[in-house]
Amino acid sequence: MIQGISKPASLRLIKLVDLLEQLESENATVTSSVIEHKTGWSRDTIRRDISLLGVQCGSSSGYNIKVLKDAIKSRLFIENTEKKCCIVGLGTLGAALINFEGFSSSGFVIKAGFDSSMNRTEVLQSTFPLYPMSMLEKIIQREQIDYAILAVPENDAIKTAKRLSDCGVKGIVNFTNALINLKDKVRVENISVIDALQKVSAKI
Amino acid sequence: MIQGISKPASLRLIKLVDLLEQLESENATVTSSVIEHKTGWSRDTIRRDISLLGVQCGSSSGYNIKVLKDAIKSRLFIENTEKKCCIVGLGTLGAALINFEGFSSSGFVIKAGFDSSMNRTEVLQSTFPLYPMSMLEKIIQREQIDYAILAVPENDAIKTAKRLSDCGVKGIVNFTNALINLKDKVRVENISVIDALQKVSAKI
Repeated sequence: MIQGISKPASLRLIKLVDLLEQLESENATVTSSVIEHKTGWSRDTIRRDISLLGVQCGSSSGYNIKVLKDAIKSRLFIENTEKKCCIVGLGTLGAALINFEGFSSSGFVIKAGFDSSMNRTEVLQSTFPLYPMSMLEKIIQREQIDYAILAVPENDAIKTAKRLSDCGVKGIVNFTNALINLKDKVRVENISVIDALQKVSAKI
Repeated sequence: MIQGISKPASLRLIKLVDLLEQLESENATVTSSVIEHKTGWSRDTIRRDISLLGVQCGSSSGYNIKVLKDAIKSRLFIENTEKKCCIVGLGTLGAALINFEGFSSSGFVIKAGFDSSMNRTEVLQSTFPLYPMSMLEKIIQREQIDYAILAVPENDAIKTAKRLSDCGVKGIVNFTNALINLKDKVRVENISVIDALQKVSAKI
């Protein structure tokens, strides 16, 4: 737990960043009742969570979106340090991520890629080294890699996530459809294009 | 609004599906207090939302996860009809999605791909037709495509999303880093590997 902010409050504040980013192109401020409407959290919960940040960001017209967002990020997101990641699984999706430009200004640095096929690791072009899966534990520990992007075939996902957890990875971004549950040892965020399509097509 | 369920309640129930899917590998049931802890929604809100489904899924040990999840999906997700999508932007990421196997059992069918480079649309191998961007409106209307996966360069994202909205697309899954706000005309879900990395690395 981060000082003075419970885990559930932290998780709500992290989700609030997404909402603030959606709102900020059209609004300078947001009220707790708008946040309540969009999230379902009670106004009391929202006000209490935000007060835990210890930042003056409210006025009669609501919270200043930019100030509030920056306050959450500076309190809860790790900035100004190089966060080391690896890509595990270099099929079409993993290979596409090798060249993803968004990493450059993100604070995240890809230190290694892994694939079970020697052919893939030899043929693919990359600015960081690519290794066979057999070297996963050795390289992650040597390079002190904390985060992994998991893009292996679905059948290998749970087994591979367990290996990542066992060698000290703290967070996994899961691009597979497998349900990964590593208890509280490792944080997991799922990225699924099918889930996203279901949400935009839901009957609301 | 779907009959008897307000939009905010629908959005909470859709988010609840993700939580239920995370829990179901380890649990058969879940209580409203666990849901409250994980989401921040009040127990009263959760019980009321679930009661709107009109399905008997609770007992003394909590809600049956599978029954609850299926009830939400059958009430809010569109099933049993072919949902037509397109991929807009066939760079490395868009091209990776062409071969994504997860679509096969999802109910979503990719009907077209678009790219501004004729070279890309001619060279890439695909089971569905690829077209130049100039044909976007014509093909989407002719094929009655409702959903788009947006994977164009970030600088083109907002302009392209506007074109998709203008020709009748109802939902966009946004893989770019651009903030897309089309008011309530089009639903947008953002997919960002950087956002996901920030969440798993946040100090909780």
